[in-house]
Amino acid sequence: MQKIVSLGEVMMRLTPPGKQKLRQAISLDILYSGSEANVTGALSLWGMQGIHVSRFPDNELGHAAIGWLRQRRMDTSYIQMGGERLGLYFVEQGAMSRPTIITYDRLPSAFSSVNKGMFKWDEILEGAEWFHWSGITPALSAGAADVLMEALTVCAAKGITVSGDINFRSGLWRYGKTPVEIMSPMLALTQVVVASENDTRTIFGIAAGKDKGNGFISICSQMQSRFPAIRYMITSPREQISATHNRLSGWLWNGTDFMETRNYNMEQIVERIGSGDTFMAGFIYAALQGWNDQQKIDFATASAVLKHSFEGDIMLGSVEQVLQVMEGDTGGRIVR
Amino acid sequence: MQKIVSLGEVMMRLTPPGKQKLRQAISLDILYSGSEANVTGALSLWGMQGIHVSRFPDNELGHAAIGWLRQRRMDTSYIQMGGERLGLYFVEQGAMSRPTIITYDRLPSAFSSVNKGMFKWDEILEGAEWFHWSGITPALSAGAADVLMEALTVCAAKGITVSGDINFRSGLWRYGKTPVEIMSPMLALTQVVVASENDTRTIFGIAAGKDKGNGFISICSQMQSRFPAIRYMITSPREQISATHNRLSGWLWNGTDFMETRNYNMEQIVERIGSGDTFMAGFIYAALQGWNDQQKIDFATASAVLKHSFEGDIMLGSVEQVLQVMEGDTGGRIVR
Amino acid sequence: MQKIVSLGEVMMRLTPPGKQKLRQAISLDILYSGSEANVTGALSLWGMQGIHVSRFPDNELGHAAIGWLRQRRMDTSYIQMGGERLGLYFVEQGAMSRPTIITYDRLPSAFSSVNKGMFKWDEILEGAEWFHWSGITPALSAGAADVLMEALTVCAAKGITVSGDINFRSGLWRYGKTPVEIMSPMLALTQVVVASENDTRTIFGIAAGKDKGNGFISICSQMQSRFPAIRYMITSPREQISATHNRLSGWLWNGTDFMETRNYNMEQIVERIGSGDTFMAGFIYAALQGWNDQQKIDFATASAVLKHSFEGDIMLGSVEQVLQVMEGDTGGRIVR
Amino acid sequence: MQKIVSLGEVMMRLTPPGKQKLRQAISLDILYSGSEANVTGALSLWGMQGIHVSRFPDNELGHAAIGWLRQRRMDTSYIQMGGERLGLYFVEQGAMSRPTIITYDRLPSAFSSVNKGMFKWDEILEGAEWFHWSGITPALSAGAADVLMEALTVCAAKGITVSGDINFRSGLWRYGKTPVEIMSPMLALTQVVVASENDTRTIFGIAAGKDKGNGFISICSQMQSRFPAIRYMITSPREQISATHNRLSGWLWNGTDFMETRNYNMEQIVERIGSGDTFMAGFIYAALQGWNDQQKIDFATASAVLKHSFEGDIMLGSVEQVLQVMEGDTGGRIVR
Amino acid sequence: MQKIVSLGEVMMRLTPPGKQKLRQAISLDILYSGSEANVTGALSLWGMQGIHVSRFPDNELGHAAIGWLRQRRMDTSYIQMGGERLGLYFVEQGAMSRPTIITYDRLPSAFSSVNKGMFKWDEILEGAEWFHWSGITPALSAGAADVLMEALTVCAAKGITVSGDINFRSGLWRYGKTPVEIMSPMLALTQVVVASENDTRTIFGIAAGKDKGNGFISICSQMQSRFPAIRYMITSPREQISATHNRLSGWLWNGTDFMETRNYNMEQIVERIGSGDTFMAGFIYAALQGWNDQQKIDFATASAVLKHSFEGDIMLGSVEQVLQVMEGDTGGRIVR
Amino acid sequence: MQKIVSLGEVMMRLTPPGKQKLRQAISLDILYSGSEANVTGALSLWGMQGIHVSRFPDNELGHAAIGWLRQRRMDTSYIQMGGERLGLYFVEQGAMSRPTIITYDRLPSAFSSVNKGMFKWDEILEGAEWFHWSGITPALSAGAADVLMEALTVCAAKGITVSGDINFRSGLWRYGKTPVEIMSPMLALTQVVVASENDTRTIFGIAAGKDKGNGFISICSQMQSRFPAIRYMITSPREQISATHNRLSGWLWNGTDFMETRNYNMEQIVERIGSGDTFMAGFIYAALQGWNDQQKIDFATASAVLKHSFEGDIMLGSVEQVLQVMEGDTGGRIVR
Repeated sequence: MQKIVSLGEVMMRLTPPGKQKLRQAISLDILYSGSEANVTGALSLWGMQGIHVSRFPDNELGHAAIGWLRQRRMDTSYIQMGGERLGLYFVEQGAMSRPTIITYDRLPSAFSSVNKGMFKWDEILEGAEWFHWSGITPALSAGAADVLMEALTVCAAKGITVSGDINFRSGLWRYGKTPVEIMSPMLALTQVVVASENDTRTIFGIAAGKDKGNGFISICSQMQSRFPAIRYMITSPREQISATHNRLSGWLWNGTDFMETRNYNMEQIVERIGSGDTFMAGFIYAALQGWNDQQKIDFATASAVLKHSFEGDIMLGSVEQVLQVMEGDTGGRIVR
Repeated sequence: MQKIVSLGEVMMRLTPPGKQKLRQAISLDILYSGSEANVTGALSLWGMQGIHVSRFPDNELGHAAIGWLRQRRMDTSYIQMGGERLGLYFVEQGAMSRPTIITYDRLPSAFSSVNKGMFKWDEILEGAEWFHWSGITPALSAGAADVLMEALTVCAAKGITVSGDINFRSGLWRYGKTPVEIMSPMLALTQVVVASENDTRTIFGIAAGKDKGNGFISICSQMQSRFPAIRYMITSPREQISATHNRLSGWLWNGTDFMETRNYNMEQIVERIGSGDTFMAGFIYAALQGWNDQQKIDFATASAVLKHSFEGDIMLGSVEQVLQVMEGDTGGRIVR
Repeated sequence: MQKIVSLGEVMMRLTPPGKQKLRQAISLDILYSGSEANVTGALSLWGMQGIHVSRFPDNELGHAAIGWLRQRRMDTSYIQMGGERLGLYFVEQGAMSRPTIITYDRLPSAFSSVNKGMFKWDEILEGAEWFHWSGITPALSAGAADVLMEALTVCAAKGITVSGDINFRSGLWRYGKTPVEIMSPMLALTQVVVASENDTRTIFGIAAGKDKGNGFISICSQMQSRFPAIRYMITSPREQISATHNRLSGWLWNGTDFMETRNYNMEQIVERIGSGDTFMAGFIYAALQGWNDQQKIDFATASAVLKHSFEGDIMLGSVEQVLQVMEGDTGGRIVR
Repeated sequence: MQKIVSLGEVMMRLTPPGKQKLRQAISLDILYSGSEANVTGALSLWGMQGIHVSRFPDNELGHAAIGWLRQRRMDTSYIQMGGERLGLYFVEQGAMSRPTIITYDRLPSAFSSVNKGMFKWDEILEGAEWFHWSGITPALSAGAADVLMEALTVCAAKGITVSGDINFRSGLWRYGKTPVEIMSPMLALTQVVVASENDTRTIFGIAAGKDKGNGFISICSQMQSRFPAIRYMITSPREQISATHNRLSGWLWNGTDFMETRNYNMEQIVERIGSGDTFMAGFIYAALQGWNDQQKIDFATASAVLKHSFEGDIMLGSVEQVLQVMEGDTGGRIVR
Repeated sequence: MQKIVSLGEVMMRLTPPGKQKLRQAISLDILYSGSEANVTGALSLWGMQGIHVSRFPDNELGHAAIGWLRQRRMDTSYIQMGGERLGLYFVEQGAMSRPTIITYDRLPSAFSSVNKGMFKWDEILEGAEWFHWSGITPALSAGAADVLMEALTVCAAKGITVSGDINFRSGLWRYGKTPVEIMSPMLALTQVVVASENDTRTIFGIAAGKDKGNGFISICSQMQSRFPAIRYMITSPREQISATHNRLSGWLWNGTDFMETRNYNMEQIVERIGSGDTFMAGFIYAALQGWNDQQKIDFATASAVLKHSFEGDIMLGSVEQVLQVMEGDTGGRIVR
Repeated sequence: MQKIVSLGEVMMRLTPPGKQKLRQAISLDILYSGSEANVTGALSLWGMQGIHVSRFPDNELGHAAIGWLRQRRMDTSYIQMGGERLGLYFVEQGAMSRPTIITYDRLPSAFSSVNKGMFKWDEILEGAEWFHWSGITPALSAGAADVLMEALTVCAAKGITVSGDINFRSGLWRYGKTPVEIMSPMLALTQVVVASENDTRTIFGIAAGKDKGNGFISICSQMQSRFPAIRYMITSPREQISATHNRLSGWLWNGTDFMETRNYNMEQIVERIGSGDTFMAGFIYAALQGWNDQQKIDFATASAVLKHSFEGDIMLGSVEQVLQVMEGDTGGRIVR
């Protein structure tokens, strides 16, 4: 089993049933989710040893979150128990012209209070083939940023491939540092980057022209000039017809070439949250299989598309199903 | 806070979960709803003092209905407790080519047994800026028609703007009077009228030609000739692709000009019931803001469109969200 | 009341709520269903005396299944209680590009252990106007095939019209016989046959060219040459846009003419399972009304289309509603 | 199969989940129930041909009620479809020192508008061994009382045994007649009577002294003097510790002897409603088996006790289970 | 309507269904609750104008909480919108020998960040007859303690009766002050005090001997010596047989006399949380009716007992029902 | 972490909600359970490395079962995927005098088709401190009995302590062997035996006199004479007041002494299934802690008692909570 490691917060997600708003609800559906754990969850489902590193409060919520990740086949051996509380977020599902609304209730979470030295990265990363992080972690607290830098330094020493999803959230970054100062040394140690133009422009002032291929290539070149470790930049542009009707495709730049996938029409989306994480997971899986770059972005994008058909934030479609979507399966068959 | 007042029946609505028929159900989802209260509910949500006047039985159902309206910010101080029973209606939600089926179980409701003198209209309407009624009230009983005429007379004396939604229901009007004799004096005291061609043709014999703009203008002119108090006539024509796929636009006639909105494509409708009431509420809100006529019909229509995205019969979208729909928001974003 | 009789297994169906996979579920929605009982269920709803013949275990599951069929107006007087267990099947509902997955857990079911002489066919079929079977029954066990042949022989003696849905399931047929040897004598006693090209090609080696009309006609002619009792062959070709967006039409061949219906666009399908059985029921109903062949296939197809709008495997739309769909009703009205 | 016939209203029952009050509920659990149908439901479960005669509205609620009775094995062939509405009742389940509250919403129900001549009693009662009625039917309307008298007259002619449950409800009897004038001729044709002292005192002024055995015997003697057709009077005195903790026993008087059962302690009652009807059913079953009088009252009482352990108003325990309770089974075993 | 005012935090409560632990749950039942609002909720139900003063975040949770209080008839006009987040608490319901476990997730709540001057106490308290507070408020933050002292000072000036529930929670009081220094000036302005011996001993070092009457009297005397404003001390001693089987009685000391109620045996408790608040509400109600001291403690205790029979934290039993419990109603009747 | 290993079937359990019978249900609650896995689940919760060895079908049900065990902290690394189907059992929860009814649907399960050589026992048992089996495994098939004997032989070689729960089920043992011939060599390798008198009498003809202490001692002595490896025999006698009211105590015999615990009164049992397995787990836990024999039986019994308070078949109470029950905690506190 190939070993992959991720670091990041896991929150309880609370969602009114169906299309209810919170003010209509007398119960909330719950699950446990975090951008990085969602990546590792997909990879664990697909047969890898996915280790997620985090910190949960030592209370009923923390233990429930552990069980949730274990049920999804993740290895939780290195999650530490301690700290104040589990972060939460409330989701009101959008419909038609009504957008989905997320209300975060995140700080002061157990994860945001991690500190340098808390995790034995040498042991955790021993034998790993991949490490994944997102820009949410350094946005939470100085301690979280420190812990991430520790991990990245060990990865560099061990030659472990690193992917990072910039994932800029303006509501975070409250501890007095700017994204550019904190994330620059991190990107200097990262080979695969997921970023939207909004991310690169807001944080690094790196913008693009209008035509999609060239614009994206321009951003990628500028990013690579600044962070020479980068080998791949990928993104999945989304067209938004309504809250539950989107179109999605995938773009990849490998330092020389731009590649894109076909455009998927996605009607009656079941759950969009977590699809970006599944895109990342798809890329990692394909890369670890040694597939070529077109296959990487095709598999990543088909993974993201298929993810929209499952409830919850973590991918539940098998590798075989992703390949079928990639090959044009419309889902209209009944599999008996 | 601007004060608006409405009068009308409130019923318990009972709906099998999902797309079940009653014969499949072992539980029913419930809520409380009435055409006029739905209008006031939207206006209360939008920050006005919405007073709904009605009569509920003094039993567990009546008290549950009071709580429901209060939760939706309505002022229930003038609702009287007494009478036989709360009216009910059962809804089987349509799907695809299967229409929604409503089974009413309405009489002899507490509201239908109201009588002249039961409500202190002078006190209730003191300081109000708007009064709203619908054609369901006079259709229920002679007593209900009397009470409505009392209110309209006080409105006229106090100079309160009045809106009426003709809302003809052939299954009602069982107490021996015709709509034309009962509603004519009411419309004589009403400034804003919502009516479909079916309403005006069936009740007043006022029909139109085929082309939409002119046809509607013709109806409006004829109505105004007959009821000179009318300042505005509005309607929201609907094209029905399937039970959950409709298109909607809004028309307004202000005595001189015809205005219309853009046409909204509404796929995957969550709940259509109450959207007409929200259309009315949107008009009242815009009018009380002093917006121009195009803005009035645009806001009314966007309100109605957005309503289709919420569960239940009462609007839950904010003024800001309606304005976003009006400005073209497709709902595809995630609001964090 | 016209009397129709069917023979076949009834299983408990277990489905995770909404779009969940089994691994996410802590409860399963249940119902009872079987291809032949679904046909009889529709006909019972439509006012006929529908007798379903089967065998259920004499335990809580068997008695629950009896109640289920009775609630849907079927006559269960001839169902025998005995045998090991009730067959089960688990359904994970598809969405978007994710196909529906059915996991069968069927053998050794009570029905599969029926034997010659167990049912009094002379009594059961006395006065019946129609008998319906499907290819699932002879696929289950030698005993089930024997019992079906008994029934068909009595039908032939009494001049009862017989319909058969070939319904080839490669996962069955495990008892050492081939479909062709077992089903040939059955088709020799059957007047109305539902078959897809896949059925005829796999079992009888009867295939077709590419153009739909001619291809189907060619199959039908070959089938009739081989089984001269055949009077009608019908099928409902389906185009699969996604798991919940299909298009459906109906084809009929009456020995001389080919007829087809208009093509129905079906978005937001509620439940597809059982629609083929409803197609069969629609044909039987129309035939027993004495309608002409175009009406037969039109009614059958509209029945199948409308079925997709109901939860569960058994049709719940009335004859009147089917006729409305046939005449173009889009389902957009609210019926009050 | 022994044939038994009952006549009476069937209502939809609506109950908030768990211990909620209506004002807390957003859904209601539903079922269909009526005192007389509950008797017949138990007898049908126990293998008799139970025919329930009633009138339901020809709408979705009426058809749902038909399916409900059929699922519980009743013969609904003689139920007529027509009239205004299905009666309803709302139940808030009691707990501890909080009593169960029933809110009726009954008139003008389809059943209450039955009329003389509507039912073919000669055909319905042909071959029947028992007919059961309750005092609710004549309390609803003059028409219902007439229809019941028709049935009783035919029973007398055919020599069919008749049982009647006096079941006095002060909230009914609104049509201008007194219970004594209406029910006296009915009791003159009834052999088995269930009555509480409250019933006999309120209606007939027949009261008793204090000691239970003698008091009951005294009532019974007085009743028989007045209505000489009476062969048996039975009742099930209940001691009420809390809403869910009661004690129950059974008393029988057969014209000469008084017999009683042991006293059952019933903690954690699941559903009390319908237990009196099951008591009646138990007596009828035992009588039709030809058991002796002590066995009759023992079986009736054990049936009533066991009924308290099932959800819903209709008995679901088998004859074998009732016998086990009668013989002292505490329910502590697990039956595998 | 008598006007009563309370101040305090309101939290969202999240509870797994039934007896599940959080780690088993995929949904949580929710409600909104706070010790002081629970008092005012009962009084509002009983017909008083109950004004609850608090601060909620201006997000979906805050607005949901507003609706919840309004549905329970409270006046929310003076609740301010602002601050970080709504406090939460998770409840795992106990059973048998398993205690109920509450996991708080409270700080930094919107209410805890209130500050002096934020509420217009002069206006809010104008015409009020009673003000209620609990020891949770000053335990949360210095700001909350300040705001409470402001209110108490205005009460003193206006001669409004004040009740306080000491309600010591060792998990709070984290802002650097001790309960004794903060609460002493508050008790100096309070006429009615609810306190357990644990409260008085831990905070003020005031303990008692062993015999209940004398022990309680001794505590009360000592408290009154220290806080001469005290007119009444009340408490409701509870004996705990299991998680759902308790016994409860009430004690009152009025400066001279000790009074107690009968002891209530409470089996099958539905919800214990909020019963202490209902005890307080019962006392306030009785006091405002001018009832004598024995009636006060009897009504308070019967209120608390009846509260255990309702779901949720807020009393739903009427004054009439409380009086029935007080008079010995066991809840065994069915009220029709 | 101490390593413990168990072998046995895991089934899907399907239970109607609340107290429904299957014939009332439209959904079933599900979980995954097996006698031996329940033991290991408790030990895993309590911090041990619990390895459960089994075989699941390689379909959606098998994967769901894997996730379930992992969520409960079990190590599933040695579970093999393959075979026909997952065994099922349906549970109708008893109430009052109605017993719980279990309907098994077990064969031909994936586990029952295991065979010698399928599991690498040397590797699996390396370093283990305990192995647990039950009499269900050898009852299923010859292959299952063979696999168990393989494991026991390796345990003997490695000196691993073995516990066995005789757990005689007359409905199993269908493959032609008798329990006595199959289980005798197994008991010859087992140190700790759980057995009821019914087990020993039915299988080995070993019965007892009437007085409990002596009777049990007599059985134990006879068993030890026959199977000299036995060091401990334990059992938990149960008194059954009703389906949800039992009394439980624990007995232990250690070859010389008889010890017993206090008797626990258990009212309002939440779930009894799995309590015997938790009794076993409690003994193993105490033994591995090196506690004395009285502590072993006390902890085992308190574990079993506390188990009755949780939903599901697997223990969810912590070691600390068990100790509190052992020390007399009634569960009446609220833990904040």
